Amino acid sequence: MKVLVIGAAGMVGRKLVAALLKAGQVGGRALSGITLADIVAPQIPKSSITIEAVAADLSVDGVAEGLIGLRPDLIFHLAAIVSGEAEADFEKGYRINLDGTRHLFEAIRLVGSPYKPRLVFTSSIAVFGEPLPAVIGDSQHHTPLTSYGTQKAICELLLADYSRRGFFEGVGIRLPTIAVRPGKPNKAASGFFSGIIREPLAGVEAILPVDDSVRHWFASPRAAVGFLLHAAAIDTALLGNQPNLTMPGLAATVGEQIAALERVAGPQAVQLIRRERDETIAKIVAGWPQAFEAQRARALGFRGETEFDDIIRVYLEDELARGNGTT
Amino acid sequence: MKVLVIGAAGMVGRKLVAALLKAGQVGGRALSGITLADIVAPQIPKSSITIEAVAADLSVDGVAEGLIGLRPDLIFHLAAIVSGEAEADFEKGYRINLDGTRHLFEAIRLVGSPYKPRLVFTSSIAVFGEPLPAVIGDSQHHTPLTSYGTQKAICELLLADYSRRGFFEGVGIRLPTIAVRPGKPNKAASGFFSGIIREPLAGVEAILPVDDSVRHWFASPRAAVGFLLHAAAIDTALLGNQPNLTMPGLAATVGEQIAALERVAGPQAVQLIRRERDETIAKIVAGWPQAFEAQRARALGFRGETEFDDIIRVYLEDELARGNGTT
Repeated sequence: MKVLVIGAAGMVGRKLVAALLKAGQVGGRALSGITLADIVAPQIPKSSITIEAVAADLSVDGVAEGLIGLRPDLIFHLAAIVSGEAEADFEKGYRINLDGTRHLFEAIRLVGSPYKPRLVFTSSIAVFGEPLPAVIGDSQHHTPLTSYGTQKAICELLLADYSRRGFFEGVGIRLPTIAVRPGKPNKAASGFFSGIIREPLAGVEAILPVDDSVRHWFASPRAAVGFLLHAAAIDTALLGNQPNLTMPGLAATVGEQIAALERVAGPQAVQLIRRERDETIAKIVAGWPQAFEAQRARALGFRGETEFDDIIRVYLEDELARGNGTT
Repeated sequence: MKVLVIGAAGMVGRKLVAALLKAGQVGGRALSGITLADIVAPQIPKSSITIEAVAADLSVDGVAEGLIGLRPDLIFHLAAIVSGEAEADFEKGYRINLDGTRHLFEAIRLVGSPYKPRLVFTSSIAVFGEPLPAVIGDSQHHTPLTSYGTQKAICELLLADYSRRGFFEGVGIRLPTIAVRPGKPNKAASGFFSGIIREPLAGVEAILPVDDSVRHWFASPRAAVGFLLHAAAIDTALLGNQPNLTMPGLAATVGEQIAALERVAGPQAVQLIRRERDETIAKIVAGWPQAFEAQRARALGFRGETEFDDIIRVYLEDELARGNGTT
């Protein structure tokens, strides 16, 4: 089985590739080769499996055709520019997040039958916006309040139509907020959800810009990789005409995150969290989803963490135990 | 006020133009000129208002820029290829219904501030698909089961994002099935809903391919024009970030349609309806929406008919009284 990972240089992409290489198979079919694509050519990890790395911008005419020329059996499409950039640069957001994805879908369609790869697409809970219920069901309508969320919602509709027409076997997965993200603090409004765990574990002070009562929806990077691999092997006939799924995460308040940190790392870690309210961030975060039912995904066998303690332990095992804490 | 009507040669487009010319104003602002655009140049009706007619295919690069070069204050975008054709010709459907609409939106955006026209877009209840509740609320999620419905749902998302960003004042209206359509029978799966009224009123036999218990959602052409004009003048601040609205129609079963025909035109009209079940049509129609709440639109002052008798009377007044029954 030939696999193509688009967006392979990102945090989740690198972990996905490592997991694929470690498993050596997907759904019982052995890997024969992996192509890693990103806006700059990804680093090639050591492996006995044939790996190719290419620089590819899907928004450029012909690039998607080149990638699909290899006839991958399984495609992971993780590439996107993030919410803040898509909001700041309207044209770039639509070019990369919508046109790039559509080019990919079209390149597959134009190969024609019998070519019909599995395509796993990462969507986002940003397809949902206020007003939202406290716990969001699987039939929540899309009311994105950002251009990024709009682009993801459009790609979900395209994924469903191309799948219905039989051009590929699409699975769209709406990832929870991924925590604990490794690396340095960033300026994303969501950055503190990881920072208040990651920084204290490294003995560094972290700023908490919102109230302890703020509730949000989380999964670990390891769980995200698990979702992607499960989506790659699932029987798509079970999805009917609705191939886009909200992934199971866990709902936790900031206070519950902090209590978990104390249980895992002790009170001295918690003392490194400094409360410094930021009205701008607090206002942005107040409009975000708090929790989801994710019944369809759970029934289909997708599994996330159930306690925030586990999310912290995953971080300790996957990052700090390997000395990756700041990479 | 300068008005642009795209799709002006269609049934609803022609009636809209006639209503605009009769009123001479929209929301209290006098019309200074109307541009009629369609895939072939529309006929120019007689009027003291300056009218221009152009052949325009929005899917062709530069065409939208040409139309927007006139800086219309109010734009009605009614142009689309219909459901059956979009399903039969995948590329044409996306080119006309998605790319064409996006070209229009982009042409407006690229003019830049302070240009900010009102844009009224006709969407469709085809954005919804099974499984559906008996009465569909305003928060029903989009699950289109056709490429046409997918294209309309995507355009709704784009309309909302472009409006949120301030590029235009968008209002998307999801029209009910329009009945009684004037003219000859067509092959649309929905054609019989009009045919079982129109043909008997003309003394001609009509085929009914489904059971009397089939329930669907209707408005007259006159009501559709009323929706468009109301959307043109409404305060868009009241729409928040959800500028797409399900229009109020009336839910009626085929049996109720026939009873209304008998009340309006007598038992001899009803005897011209011949029941000849068509499994293909029956199956398609079984997946269609039956009724909507349309609470938001009603609260915003949109008004449709409340009894099917009225829909028949509108047909008699607007079509047969003018001898338009077969045009």
